[in-house]
This record gives sequence, structure tokens and C-alpha cells, in this order.
Amino acid sequence: MSQIEGRRPVLEALRAGRDLDEIWIARGARIAGPLADIVAEAERSGVSVVRVERERVDSRALTAAPQGVIAFAPSFAYASIEDALERPRVAREPALLLALDGVTDPHNVGALARSAEAAGAHAILLPRRRSAGITPTVEKAAAGALAHLPIVEVPNMARALSDLQDRGIWVVVLDADAATDVDALDLATEPLCLVVGSEGRGVSRLIIDTADAACRVPLRGKVGSLNASVAGAVALFAVVRKRTQAT
Amino acid sequence: MSQIEGRRPVLEALRAGRDLDEIWIARGARIAGPLADIVAEAERSGVSVVRVERERVDSRALTAAPQGVIAFAPSFAYASIEDALERPRVAREPALLLALDGVTDPHNVGALARSAEAAGAHAILLPRRRSAGITPTVEKAAAGALAHLPIVEVPNMARALSDLQDRGIWVVVLDADAATDVDALDLATEPLCLVVGSEGRGVSRLIIDTADAACRVPLRGKVGSLNASVAGAVALFAVVRKRTQAT
Repeated sequence: MSQIEGRRPVLEALRAGRDLDEIWIARGARIAGPLADIVAEAERSGVSVVRVERERVDSRALTAAPQGVIAFAPSFAYASIEDALERPRVAREPALLLALDGVTDPHNVGALARSAEAAGAHAILLPRRRSAGITPTVEKAAAGALAHLPIVEVPNMARALSDLQDRGIWVVVLDADAATDVDALDLATEPLCLVVGSEGRGVSRLIIDTADAACRVPLRGKVGSLNASVAGAVALFAVVRKRTQAT
Repeated sequence: MSQIEGRRPVLEALRAGRDLDEIWIARGARIAGPLADIVAEAERSGVSVVRVERERVDSRALTAAPQGVIAFAPSFAYASIEDALERPRVAREPALLLALDGVTDPHNVGALARSAEAAGAHAILLPRRRSAGITPTVEKAAAGALAHLPIVEVPNMARALSDLQDRGIWVVVLDADAATDVDALDLATEPLCLVVGSEGRGVSRLIIDTADAACRVPLRGKVGSLNASVAGAVALFAVVRKRTQAT
């Protein structure tokens, strides 16, 4: 269970169509302005509004000023890295993981999840900070993929990737400045974690420096960059191709 | 120059951030309601509002009820198919065109344009109807690619593709139900037009039936579909790979 507090955030969550279990409004608060909008939007979306004592609202609040309103949302069920690595073991195939380093656009996170699932990836690693997290926009762009693809939230991406290396997983960074084309790497048999960075800044220096390899999608045009979700998808399907040809 | 007429359409164009040169409002029209919103939004966006005689508004209008307001937008400069085919000739390489059949989401049209340009495609074919056209959302998603990639607007996609076939261009449809993987086709040397359809309905039956070949991006997951812009990008870069290996 996660919670959203304050009049504007709760109203925005409702307007964004976010899945909410219940909204608490302090007894005695006048239903006008944003609170009236919250009540109307909640009714439209079928979300229950419960009037509770103001002290109960305040004691339940995680922020200093809940403004008499808290919405409760079911929280996304993240997976552990052990859960994620169990999947390739059961399927008896080399691991294929996708790590997102600083991808902040929720459309891109969702699109990458959709492509990763379609490419048969076993899990996605998302950093706890500097990431979109799993918001309703992410879920919408993922088009159902999150029901099948475990998402692992990691406190520190560089450390998480180093742990994967210790477990024998090859960490390969997608980097527009890399000298090697993704097609030139032997990605068929090794357990693998592909790392995709943000469009603006790419994968962080530390991760590039400690990765086992870096590769790029070869470009021919003048604009010279791909959308992060497209670059990730092209690389994922390059792996699928190699693995299909190898079997 | 294209024009948008009526209070609601002009207001929506402003709110969508569409590039407008000027807005005419009939002299004498009371600035209230939507007209007041138009004036406020225009000021915020830096678009000039000019008061002109009502007769001038009416005589310039292309629709029956301009409601005293017309906005003038710079129109997108489409290319001819001859312009498009000149590019591979000059570059002395086999043509690579991308045709969009019924792709209505402007984000997808823009994303496909961006990927096509990055893959070195020579032009995009868009149908005049059942397509997003080149809106500000398309231009934004294309991230500058439209400055380098000719867009050809065709009145009838099936006929346009048949014309391309007459000129010796191989028409290859991307179809999730195709039996052949995109990697199994020999796409290296033949001049080529890839056809991508909408996510919901795919490429139209007539076009699939008359195409020279159909292929799919091989999927491994459970969701079983890719975003149209991702499928198109994966196929485009499959062609790039084949052509790079062939040279």
C-alpha cells in the first residue's frame, strides 16, 4: 500500500486515472474547491471516499501537511533479483536482463518493459532514484507486459550490476559512442544484462567503465540518435536473433 | 499556409502548442468565453491576434462557420515520390523507404520518422487519410528528423506501393502473422519499401496480398505484440545490418 497526500496530488492522481483503493477526507473539512473536485472525480472513478477524524488523518500522514486528505493506492509488487534469476534457470536458457540507468520518461520505461517482455527478457532492473518508477503512465505504455515481467528495484545500479557480474552475468552497456556494433558482439550463449541509459546523458560513466562490454546501434542518418526505448528494443532483438540462430 | 477555423479548433491548436503565424478575430466580436481563452493562450504563446473586418474573415474562410476566428499555420512541405527516389540514386545505394499504413498515433509517426532517419531511410510514405499527418506532436516525437527525411503524402497507399513495384522496388510488409522472420529475408541489395501498419489492425489486407513479401519480428514473450514504432525500428535496423554486412 502506498499513499498520496494533499489536495492537489490526490486530485492529480484521480485525474491521471491512477488505481486507488480509498480516499480519506478529514471530518469537518469543507467540501469546496479542490476537495469538491476530489469528491466528484472519486465518484466518477468509483473510488470510495471515507470521512475520518482529522487526528486519524494527521497521524496516518507521512508528510507534514496532508491538508485533510490521503489517498491509498495499491503499491506495485517489485521482484527480488533472486526471483528474476530463477526464471532463466527454470527455462534453462541464458539470462537476458535489461537495466535502465536514469531513464526518467515513464513512456520510455513502459515501452522498454513491453519490448523486453516481447523479446523474452527475464526481468528489468530499475534504480530506486533517478527513475520513473512504476507509475500508471509506465503501466499504460507497457501494455500489459508488467503482468509477466518482474521489475527489480535496486538501491544502487552500479553495485547491482557488479553483483550480477559476480554471479557470472555479462554486463553490456548500450553507448552511442562505443566502437563496437551490437551485432559484432557474441551475445548468443552468455547470460547477459543489457544496460540502457537516458537519451540526454546516456549510461553513467562509472557503469560504462565497469561493464564487460559497450556497444552501439549503428546509425546512418544525420540526426544521430535514437529514442532510448527504440535503441533498447533494437539491441534486445539483436540478442534474440543471435540466440535464435544459435539454437 | 494552412488555416484553422472556428473557436474550439483554434483554441485546441493553441493549447496543443501548434506553430501558428497569426490569428484573425472579426472586429466587433465580443472577447468572452472561448474567444477570451484564445486571446489569452495566443498571448502566452506569442502568436499575434489581429482584428479584421468580419467580411474579410468570412471571405477568407474555407468552412461555412468560422465563428469570427481563423488561425494561420505554416503548412508542412511534403515531398514528391520523385524527390524521394532521387536520394538513393544520388547516394548510389539501394532505396530504403518506409510506408505507414493506418498508423494514427502521432507519437508513433514521429518516432518512426526519427528511427527511419537514423537508419538512413530515404523517405517516408504517409497516406493522406487514416494517418496522423504531420502535426506538432509528430514533429516533436521526430526530434528533428523531419528536417532531413522527406515525407511523401500519398492519396492511396495500395496504389502508391504498386507504383513503387513498377519502378522495381520490393514491397515488404511487416505482419505479426507472417511465417518468415525479418532476418530470414535477403534485404541487403534490393531497393526496398518496408510497410508498417497500425498496432490494432496491422497492414491492410489488400496491401499484404499484393506485397512482394511479408515478415515479422520474432517474439518470445507472452504479450505477443510490439509497439508499431518499435516493430518498425527493429525491422529498419535489420535492413541496416544486412546492408552493412553486404558492403
